[in-house]
Amino acid sequence: MGGYKHLVIFRFKAGAEVEEIMKGLEKLVSETDLVKSFEWGRDLDNPEILTQEFTHAISMTFDKKQDYDAFQNLPSHIDFSLTFSTAVQKIVVLCFPSVQVKPAVA
Amino acid sequence: MGGYKHLVIFRFKAGAEVEEIMKGLEKLVSETDLVKSFEWGRDLDNPEILTQEFTHAISMTFDKKQDYDAFQNLPSHIDFSLTFSTAVQKIVVLCFPSVQVKPAVA
Repeated sequence: MGGYKHLVIFRFKAGAEVEEIMKGLEKLVSETDLVKSFEWGRDLDNPEILTQEFTHAISMTFDKKQDYDAFQNLPSHIDFSLTFSTAVQKIVVLCFPSVQVKPAVA
Repeated sequence: MGGYKHLVIFRFKAGAEVEEIMKGLEKLVSETDLVKSFEWGRDLDNPEILTQEFTHAISMTFDKKQDYDAFQNLPSHIDFSLTFSTAVQKIVVLCFPSVQVKPAVA
């Protein structure tokens, strides 16, 4: 995959409309070609000493940082971010050029 | 990709042998077929309010949770974990069945 990674881990506030928000994010990503891969999940297996109370992760891949920047500036993303930021209790965001070890890149 | 995701975000202690440790991890992963994908990176772009002082991320994919469990129990992984855990200052681990939105799975 390589590319430029956008990784978000977070915990929803109690009472947040989790399903609605994740569906909104899936829709947002589906409507733009800037995002090359997108997956997410909810930790079910790890003890709190490992999760540090984070529950969800989002992973997106872009071809390059410029595409990520363009995605951030889409009106649909800005709208989503307002909703999202009011629904999360804690969050960490990391972005980086990905060092891909497996599968080996030709 | 789907599968079972193992996500680790962390910050190295000052003076940690970063390059050596990451090379050790790449070698470990290359030597087992249990890990289907592995990529990592170091955040360079985000302000501390977003990174919360985390600097690095590791993302691995397994076909299923059982493969992840088997990986955890490899002697080579146990050895590596001892080295790794003494080199990191803070860490979050999340594992989850991945909901893959893009690329669409056939």
